[in-house]
Amino acid sequence: MSVHPPTSGPVQLGPGAHAVLRPVDGAVITGGLLYERRRTNADVSIPDGHTRLVEAGNFHNLRLAAGTADGAYRNTLPFLDSDLYKWLEAVAWLRSAGTVPAAEATRLDGWVDDAVALLTAAQQPDGYLQSYFQVVRPDEHFIDLEWGHELYCAGHLIQAAVAHVRATGRTDLLAVATRVADHIADRIGPGFCGHPEIETALVELYRATGADRHLALARQFLDARGHRSLRADRFGSEYWQDHLPVRTADAVTGHAVRQLYLLAGVADVYLETGETALLDAAERLWTDLVTSKTYLTGGLGAHHTDEAFGEAYELPSERAYAETCAAIASIQFSLRMLLATGRAKYADLLERTLYNGFLSGVSLSGDHYFYANPLRAGDGGPARTRWFTCACCPPNVMRLLASAQHYLAAQDENGLLLHQFVAGEYAVSLAAGPIALRVETDYPWHEEINIHIGQSTDRPWTLTLRVPAWATEYRAHLNGEPVAEQPVDGWLRINRRWSVGDAVRLDLAMPARLTAPHPRVDALRGSLAIERGPLVYCVEALDQPHTLDDLVLDPDAPLTTGNRPDLLGGSVTVTATARVRTTEQERWWPYGPTPVSTVLGKAVRLTAVPYHLWGNRGPGAMRVWLPTS
Amino acid sequence: MSVHPPTSGPVQLGPGAHAVLRPVDGAVITGGLLYERRRTNADVSIPDGHTRLVEAGNFHNLRLAAGTADGAYRNTLPFLDSDLYKWLEAVAWLRSAGTVPAAEATRLDGWVDDAVALLTAAQQPDGYLQSYFQVVRPDEHFIDLEWGHELYCAGHLIQAAVAHVRATGRTDLLAVATRVADHIADRIGPGFCGHPEIETALVELYRATGADRHLALARQFLDARGHRSLRADRFGSEYWQDHLPVRTADAVTGHAVRQLYLLAGVADVYLETGETALLDAAERLWTDLVTSKTYLTGGLGAHHTDEAFGEAYELPSERAYAETCAAIASIQFSLRMLLATGRAKYADLLERTLYNGFLSGVSLSGDHYFYANPLRAGDGGPARTRWFTCACCPPNVMRLLASAQHYLAAQDENGLLLHQFVAGEYAVSLAAGPIALRVETDYPWHEEINIHIGQSTDRPWTLTLRVPAWATEYRAHLNGEPVAEQPVDGWLRINRRWSVGDAVRLDLAMPARLTAPHPRVDALRGSLAIERGPLVYCVEALDQPHTLDDLVLDPDAPLTTGNRPDLLGGSVTVTATARVRTTEQERWWPYGPTPVSTVLGKAVRLTAVPYHLWGNRGPGAMRVWLPTS
Repeated sequence: MSVHPPTSGPVQLGPGAHAVLRPVDGAVITGGLLYERRRTNADVSIPDGHTRLVEAGNFHNLRLAAGTADGAYRNTLPFLDSDLYKWLEAVAWLRSAGTVPAAEATRLDGWVDDAVALLTAAQQPDGYLQSYFQVVRPDEHFIDLEWGHELYCAGHLIQAAVAHVRATGRTDLLAVATRVADHIADRIGPGFCGHPEIETALVELYRATGADRHLALARQFLDARGHRSLRADRFGSEYWQDHLPVRTADAVTGHAVRQLYLLAGVADVYLETGETALLDAAERLWTDLVTSKTYLTGGLGAHHTDEAFGEAYELPSERAYAETCAAIASIQFSLRMLLATGRAKYADLLERTLYNGFLSGVSLSGDHYFYANPLRAGDGGPARTRWFTCACCPPNVMRLLASAQHYLAAQDENGLLLHQFVAGEYAVSLAAGPIALRVETDYPWHEEINIHIGQSTDRPWTLTLRVPAWATEYRAHLNGEPVAEQPVDGWLRINRRWSVGDAVRLDLAMPARLTAPHPRVDALRGSLAIERGPLVYCVEALDQPHTLDDLVLDPDAPLTTGNRPDLLGGSVTVTATARVRTTEQERWWPYGPTPVSTVLGKAVRLTAVPYHLWGNRGPGAMRVWLPTS
Repeated sequence: MSVHPPTSGPVQLGPGAHAVLRPVDGAVITGGLLYERRRTNADVSIPDGHTRLVEAGNFHNLRLAAGTADGAYRNTLPFLDSDLYKWLEAVAWLRSAGTVPAAEATRLDGWVDDAVALLTAAQQPDGYLQSYFQVVRPDEHFIDLEWGHELYCAGHLIQAAVAHVRATGRTDLLAVATRVADHIADRIGPGFCGHPEIETALVELYRATGADRHLALARQFLDARGHRSLRADRFGSEYWQDHLPVRTADAVTGHAVRQLYLLAGVADVYLETGETALLDAAERLWTDLVTSKTYLTGGLGAHHTDEAFGEAYELPSERAYAETCAAIASIQFSLRMLLATGRAKYADLLERTLYNGFLSGVSLSGDHYFYANPLRAGDGGPARTRWFTCACCPPNVMRLLASAQHYLAAQDENGLLLHQFVAGEYAVSLAAGPIALRVETDYPWHEEINIHIGQSTDRPWTLTLRVPAWATEYRAHLNGEPVAEQPVDGWLRINRRWSVGDAVRLDLAMPARLTAPHPRVDALRGSLAIERGPLVYCVEALDQPHTLDDLVLDPDAPLTTGNRPDLLGGSVTVTATARVRTTEQERWWPYGPTPVSTVLGKAVRLTAVPYHLWGNRGPGAMRVWLPTS
């Protein structure tokens, strides 16, 4: 089996025939917040994930399919295999980074070998592979397209296989995945999956193998969708984006993760086909997504019942669903849109989602997870959970953290672009020759970002740095002198003949700031949030001197920041001022003639911590949005 | 079989050994809003309900149990029988009113005869009766107490049987129900039902039969609950109020209808046993309910997923679940608390719920229903539905409307008390002799209530009228002279020797008013609602000159009311003033530095209609709470 491009290295998304930007060939994260969370991911989450998958029966179920185990199928959900695939993908990206100690590497490789052997054994001679339908409903393959998740599971298998081949060069898992893809192509007819995911995976399989048929199948699924051919069932065709073709839909609808994986697939098919109707649709839906259906944290999905988007501006804090998987899917979608268009706004949203609505999904300890990521919690919690019956989120966190280096930098023919600021080594091969640079920064905690050129060429090239939309003040210096260039559309581009040792310093001023909601958001009227740099802050009850819900923010009092190396693994807090609200004597009925009389008492200090760190000190009340009256 | 009290007439809840108040023996509604809705209930809803029950398979399923039909069990829910029982109860109360034309009475009685015969045939020799478990899971009786709804169905059967005997004097259905109750007593052991309902029903069966064992069983179920013996399952023990014993629980939790039916049962057991720990618990939980978990409309339940209460003050408008059944259960609970304590606040809540969150549950046409009753809707709806797969609400509406005369007046040894103001004839038998009065009013549309004494005795007795909490101004006249007495705790009591022809006029001033939310309700901050008398108002998009969500209420402009006999079956509208909000040029990100600049443009007229009438002119946007900025 040929693998194309044979030496692409451990990157996703390469090359993208119609991409404006491409991921960098080499990126190594060497320090900072993401580095720490990735270390926990490697040391705790991924090994713990193996234990959980064993406990939850994911391996057992595949052994049933392989005929090497007895007993009942574990769990009633049909998509358990996908948890294992996401975990396998995480292991592959982790191994590709080359940072795993030898003993641990041996253990990981043994797990991978066992899993690949198991999947190979479980796969039917015709290519079919999904343990649930092999064991529980063997006569119903490709019938329950609405809920069966067969193509969804295949998509995650494909993604794991592509990661595996890129990390190891081994094509054994890719062979399994390709047989699955081809079996689906043979059998699926005009159908498609109730849960998108395979579309983006097939494009990646096309990139890995060069086989056009995979790209064609991805496009076929995009074309087939949107004609109400799936059973509407409980939530309507909008739930699985089957109410309108993707090229004409004008609003994101339904199940958030389904919508976002679909959009990642739309962007991917555009990247390889250049069909502008797809790019137009993706841009239109991305705009709808962010203008009225995205939480301040980047979280997505306002409804618990159907894990779905609400109406425009329906963004309740307590019941924010904001599934961790939706944040991951949004990051994947935004990255593809960045590569397709080169527009900085996609990197802005990616950053916001990464450091807030995504990172909140896993505990600092690396072994507890939020499925939903609300922006307000009452006294009782919620608390992160060890694992879930529907365990889509934990291994999804693992694979994103393990592949985070792919989400930071990009290249075009003119040079290298840093759209995220993470301490690390970045290298690309331009036509003029290889270049490399080192980033030193403690971002997002601190504003200073230093870039050192480590390798260059004789010819000029462009170093491009994003100036985030939140950064209303910045300073840039080159070798100590102010940079003359001005940012255009969020990008600061410095074109010159770079020499080894050249140093760029970018300072993105990070005063804590207050943020107001759009006036149409009923749930947030009269409230403000605290942000600093790319981080959204929250207040947790245990840091406050009074009952959280009686603290009223004084929007005119100054905000101060404090370095707290002792707190939550090292963080920066923001202190604000609040007044203690006393409500008129309690009535049996909470509504009354206007105005309800309240008294704002003494001023107290309100301490805010980064949202992504909330709930790491036990369950308790929390708020992102603070009332001002 | 003896029926006790044999001549109690068509009332519920009688006599109540420890009741402070008792329902009146006779109440006949003769005009006004409730009269009209009851007429539609009789003319449309109840006959239509029969058609729907036939279509939905409710009769078919019981025929399967009786062995008189073939085929598959219809629907996968185990509690379909209860829909039929509620409809049967509605028919009984309708027939008891004696207002049905002869031809229609014959049709109704035929349906009842057929249903009673069917239930008699379907009941097993051992007394078991629930078609689902007889047909689908015959070996699993009383095993799945969490979700099986076996006792819940039995409770509704009992309530139907009690209504039937009170309406007709016939004991055939009561015999079936009593055998079911006794079979449950034999078989249930220490168990109890995941869905309360049988508790209140058993007390009513005790009242109808005088058999202590039914009251004892109700109490046994109260005692058994609250020790986490039901499987916690997905939503935790709080979902079915099994986390704390009812006597020590201090907050309403979980599934709203379950909680409220349970509390109706708690109040009922208190009414017959006088156990003060039960009354204390019921008062405590009622207070928790209304102070922080009740919508302005009286609606209850903030979560769709588990049909459950949210946290204190978590009351989002769009996603208000506010199930119609929860409003009904709340009305039943409040009535029992009124009878137990004589406190006017229970009648206040009952009135609010009846005219707002309950009545919204059914269309003006009487054949479409809301399951959820939100306080805000977007452009797309929702719309009322003809029937539901889970059709608990429609026949529940039917039985409450058909028995509404029981919810208006009460008596004690001193006289008669009107806690609701509905045109009608009210009669009670005091120790001193029978008394009767006639109420003439167009309440809740208009403020004038006239009471004419039609029968009296030589001895003095007390006429008690509620002065609602919303009524900050009132006037009372007796035979044209101002009444000297002042209301105490919501009750205006006039004790005298009443003569036939005496006339009392009560005017409850009904200026339209603005109502503010409690400052802890995030979802409502900066918003006001329009109310008039006991009615909550809403604005529907189709009445407004501009996009609803851009209208900002001017709280200082006057409100005016308008009689609209042409609108929605005759109603009173309220007109307010709004400014049209223009938001700064749209950004791709809806959050920004404070303050977000908005421009309030020209003043326009905002037309509000009673909330319970919304959605009767097609789906569209609607708001109860209006932003003021």
